Amino acid sequence: MTSPIDQLEQYRESIDNLDAILLHTLAERFKVTQAVGKLKAEHDMPPADKTREAQQIARLRSLAATSGLDPFFAEKFLNFIVAEVIRHHEKIRGQAPHPETPNT
Amino acid sequence: MTSPIDQLEQYRESIDNLDAILLHTLAERFKVTQAVGKLKAEHDMPPADKTREAQQIARLRSLAATSGLDPFFAEKFLNFIVAEVIRHHEKIRGQAPHPETPNT
Repeated sequence: MTSPIDQLEQYRESIDNLDAILLHTLAERFKVTQAVGKLKAEHDMPPADKTREAQQIARLRSLAATSGLDPFFAEKFLNFIVAEVIRHHEKIRGQAPHPETPNT
Repeated sequence: MTSPIDQLEQYRESIDNLDAILLHTLAERFKVTQAVGKLKAEHDMPPADKTREAQQIARLRSLAATSGLDPFFAEKFLNFIVAEVIRHHEKIRGQAPHPETPNT
């Protein structure tokens, strides 16, 4: 029989594996949003797109519901990621924060 | 040649795919942390483990560095997830927030 300590260790190994997936997927996602930022800058496209953002939120809430996550958490998660995307773009542009939500 | 609009659409499809990976992986991670919470409660193990938390932060910062992410972002990300884990556990226990960091 597995002892509680061994069971805990097994769970922690799963958490560590899942965290590795999350971080590498996030790294890939930021590569794509950086490419989006570059594309938009090169072609004078507006950084923010309210229609796209509304679609993303609706899609994430729906994905959350099917995967057993709190839909409100999914929205918080998107906001967390978008804040980092904005931070990246501000770093590139050397600008102060502004209320638009670019390239999500 | 791909038009900027088509290129943007391709990038957005990639972002949507990556977001689906992220949400499903998060759903799986919360399943494991809930199992950890149950195991700890059943065996009177302390909810917080400072050694484990320090290891997780060091590991995530290192993973971030190899995958091109800001290590500080990796730490913020772990804190964001842990806040949700705490919220789940408080919901289960019906308790007010407390400063310990359980079952990460």
